Amino acid sequence: MARSSLDIERDTPAETGSRISRRDFFKAATAGAATVTVGVATVSSAQAQEWDEETDIVVVGSGCAALSAAAAALQNGASVKIFEKGPVAGGTTGKSGGAFWIPNSPYMQEQGMDDPRDDAIRYMCRLSFPHLYRPDDEHFGMDQHTYDMLAAFYDNGARVTKTLNDTGAMTSLMSMSWDGGPTPDYFAHLPENKANHGRTTNPKNAEGGSGFGFDMVRQLSAYTEANGAPVTTETQVTKIVRDDEGRVVGVEISDPDGTRMVRANKGVIFGSGGFTQNTEMRNNYLRVPVRGGCAVPTNQGDLVNMAIEIGAKLGNMNEAWHQQEVLEEVLEFSSVPSGTWFLGGDSMVAVNRYGHRLYDEKFVYNERTRTHLTWDAVKAEYPNLYQFMIFDDHAIGYGGMLMPPAGSDMPSHIIKGDTWEELAANIDARLASLEDKIGKHSLDSTFLETLAKTIERFNSYAETGKDLEFNRGEQPIDKHFHKPGDNNDKPNPWMYPISDTGPYYAIILSAGTLDTKGGPVTTTHGQVVDISDEPIEGLYAAGNCMASPTGQAYFGAGGTLGPALTFGFMAGEHAAKA
Amino acid sequence: MARSSLDIERDTPAETGSRISRRDFFKAATAGAATVTVGVATVSSAQAQEWDEETDIVVVGSGCAALSAAAAALQNGASVKIFEKGPVAGGTTGKSGGAFWIPNSPYMQEQGMDDPRDDAIRYMCRLSFPHLYRPDDEHFGMDQHTYDMLAAFYDNGARVTKTLNDTGAMTSLMSMSWDGGPTPDYFAHLPENKANHGRTTNPKNAEGGSGFGFDMVRQLSAYTEANGAPVTTETQVTKIVRDDEGRVVGVEISDPDGTRMVRANKGVIFGSGGFTQNTEMRNNYLRVPVRGGCAVPTNQGDLVNMAIEIGAKLGNMNEAWHQQEVLEEVLEFSSVPSGTWFLGGDSMVAVNRYGHRLYDEKFVYNERTRTHLTWDAVKAEYPNLYQFMIFDDHAIGYGGMLMPPAGSDMPSHIIKGDTWEELAANIDARLASLEDKIGKHSLDSTFLETLAKTIERFNSYAETGKDLEFNRGEQPIDKHFHKPGDNNDKPNPWMYPISDTGPYYAIILSAGTLDTKGGPVTTTHGQVVDISDEPIEGLYAAGNCMASPTGQAYFGAGGTLGPALTFGFMAGEHAAKA
Repeated sequence: MARSSLDIERDTPAETGSRISRRDFFKAATAGAATVTVGVATVSSAQAQEWDEETDIVVVGSGCAALSAAAAALQNGASVKIFEKGPVAGGTTGKSGGAFWIPNSPYMQEQGMDDPRDDAIRYMCRLSFPHLYRPDDEHFGMDQHTYDMLAAFYDNGARVTKTLNDTGAMTSLMSMSWDGGPTPDYFAHLPENKANHGRTTNPKNAEGGSGFGFDMVRQLSAYTEANGAPVTTETQVTKIVRDDEGRVVGVEISDPDGTRMVRANKGVIFGSGGFTQNTEMRNNYLRVPVRGGCAVPTNQGDLVNMAIEIGAKLGNMNEAWHQQEVLEEVLEFSSVPSGTWFLGGDSMVAVNRYGHRLYDEKFVYNERTRTHLTWDAVKAEYPNLYQFMIFDDHAIGYGGMLMPPAGSDMPSHIIKGDTWEELAANIDARLASLEDKIGKHSLDSTFLETLAKTIERFNSYAETGKDLEFNRGEQPIDKHFHKPGDNNDKPNPWMYPISDTGPYYAIILSAGTLDTKGGPVTTTHGQVVDISDEPIEGLYAAGNCMASPTGQAYFGAGGTLGPALTFGFMAGEHAAKA
Repeated sequence: MARSSLDIERDTPAETGSRISRRDFFKAATAGAATVTVGVATVSSAQAQEWDEETDIVVVGSGCAALSAAAAALQNGASVKIFEKGPVAGGTTGKSGGAFWIPNSPYMQEQGMDDPRDDAIRYMCRLSFPHLYRPDDEHFGMDQHTYDMLAAFYDNGARVTKTLNDTGAMTSLMSMSWDGGPTPDYFAHLPENKANHGRTTNPKNAEGGSGFGFDMVRQLSAYTEANGAPVTTETQVTKIVRDDEGRVVGVEISDPDGTRMVRANKGVIFGSGGFTQNTEMRNNYLRVPVRGGCAVPTNQGDLVNMAIEIGAKLGNMNEAWHQQEVLEEVLEFSSVPSGTWFLGGDSMVAVNRYGHRLYDEKFVYNERTRTHLTWDAVKAEYPNLYQFMIFDDHAIGYGGMLMPPAGSDMPSHIIKGDTWEELAANIDARLASLEDKIGKHSLDSTFLETLAKTIERFNSYAETGKDLEFNRGEQPIDKHFHKPGDNNDKPNPWMYPISDTGPYYAIILSAGTLDTKGGPVTTTHGQVVDISDEPIEGLYAAGNCMASPTGQAYFGAGGTLGPALTFGFMAGEHAAKA
């Protein structure tokens, strides 16, 4: 299988070498950690002298949003301290592909690729809150706040990208697909999307080529360190400290040496990630029933709890950047090494327990995952809660995500059967073996009969090149996600007939997240607001810990990091100028 | 159409006479209301003398949970003041059917109907968090808190019902279906449900028969008034007041005469309803995209805001008691007069914009409504967001919910066409006329072709009596919801072939709620807990303003009011004994 720049979103650096060691490192680092109570403390002016440390701005976390905020604050003359709860810098950004989606990016502008403001904002509104979207409304059906936030993202994303690049804080370039063209958006096929290629951007790697998340972290953390603000790891911000007028004036931090009070003269900026690794919050807030995700183990919703204690308004709490996961991986450890960005192979389909296909298997992870939420009223079940990716040896030869590389050992989560009957029996045996973790699940008695029809139809689509149900392989993003294998001569190289003879294989898929996208609501400058929409002076949030104005949307590769980088930077600027 | 006790859930008293006036009353009462900022105030001990009024317990709201709490507090020797924000007592309970679901109810016990604890709790867990359910786990897969709450509901529901009945605070009886038997649960057909009839209970009406929500409010409010605690209307609790140690010691109230401080020596109990009428909260918390619901206009999430400001943990924020609504009704006023409990008529189907049926049209509203959430990945649309209930003159003659009574004027929300082509064109014209409110929506170009096939299949099911897709009419609750009309001689009287000739009719359906079911998390005694799970002394919540342990479930008719009555009562007891 050819590797290309598209790997930015689907292959994490962790997979290319250090995966196990980093994962074990995190497991070891979090396994014995005591549950720390986070919250808010109030100091009266009489206590003001008790600070252990002092700085202008405290930054919490060390992913994209946090480091962008730190860089902006430093560039605007502020002193900065950066505290990272985990054992290494980078947070979930460090595991990620590193792409960041910027409408009207400087690289689009350089190449004369138009991305008019109204069109870009329309596209974002259309996807963020589809049930509210009204194309002829001046705010496209959004409330004023959501519209303002999305507009602010458009208005500042390019400037932030250019500033970071030009100052050397983080150099970047346009993301290119394996076919040599600019990377398409995830909904490049929608008529509302005019400038549907080229918004995805990548940090440069050490050689000046297209880099990954760790290149983003490497560049930004080197920049902040060179400017006096290294990332201090294994240091959790346990309390937001406010004065008796309610202004946030510092934090309490805890590290292996104890607890200290750090004064922040200008502000505290959270870029501390979401709540994917907090089971209770997942179940009580999210729309989709998920079991974990890519987010680092430290993303346990600390800011949600502190925001509640300080009286911040919460927003977008029902949403996450969704992806599917290999069920057995997430059951082993809820911080999975990588998302299932797309499903590899050509002679491959994904079906539910009734044997029905549910989507274009090559389409976007965030959208495929929403099918896990479908509810069967009378049966009182989520029929798509667990899904089964089914394939044959030809698909393995074709390659792609979740396909075992040629000559490698078959991972234990791949279930095998020499016939369909044997495969189904082995899937049921596997599900039964997981019963103490997931409860009683099994294939329906109609599974094999329906699967046979599903495969018969799929095979006819593969021969003609036209998927009459889900248009597989026709969306620009389908093509981007997977350069076809070299063993497919069919008219649509993202489909190939599934063999009449085994062996056959299956992988059980569950719903998950990259991370969640709800938290305290902010102004366009990142200031956290209270329940009356008034800014809480001195308190900022950006990235996955904030209420994302993007609702349920994932605009394109880097839809996560683009807003994080932009709003992080704007928070840093605003706090520094406070 | 015959009327029976089953009307308790589907016909509100409002519909039987006072509907318009009450609705207009609420509209008038809320239309000009200024937005009041709610929150939390802290008084130091030096300020303690500034109270305008004093009582043992302040109860906020006057629906089922609030009045049950007040009755319990009075029975345990406490003095009580009840403040109702709206212009009339009763809240959403007053609009409701009044049924309350109590496992192992005293009336089941009287009749020797076994409802073993383990079976009842299993049924509740199975439905509350289906994706977590593990039948062989000691807590059925629930977390300890959820399990404890559901167990507490089982352990106390019967006692509370009996106490209220025996003291005359609220007399009640077992709910009976039109066929003379006890009312079935909503999932009486599930194998996990053993005691699947008889848990639904009703307040007695003035004649000692089966009453409605206003009978519940009438009885309970008369009881509290007779014991010194009348409901004071048009009085909003605007602030929770705590002392400098964090204990809740009173409230600030606002009424047309101004603002006053009321001391509560033993506690403040919220029974103030959910956040259905708060658009921002709906969009930022709920799983299903809804547009409003049955909840009274005053249910704007006041307690969510106050809970955040006081640092309470929030739970079950993604969930609501769901129901479908007539789209044009909810667009007129987001507090609809009544839910669409089931879809009337026999020669009737509900389809999406592609012409596909989605469910058993006679099944439970909470479950049908979840189909509105299905997501089409590639199209980036909710294909079932708006649904179309389609019927003919035979269905009107058969009767049932949403069917215009014989001889009445056709309501404007019923769209008519003499042919299928004309009906589809008129649906599209109606959708276009609503564009400034809902955006661009239309039937798909394949609608008529698919609808023809859908109806052909449905008509064959109607002839044989067997719905091969959704088993319509086979669930016990299907039968309970609708006594068949007397013009249906088919083998399954809940289906009848749709006519080959027009006129045809359509009603556009939207997703909605009775009310939401998230809010501050409580102990089994109703004490609100903080983000560290520690009770906030003096603060209680019950009913739709609390974090319901029932997750996404609706166990049976009265699944809303049963827990509200029980947990309200327990909160009143606990506070009185403080």
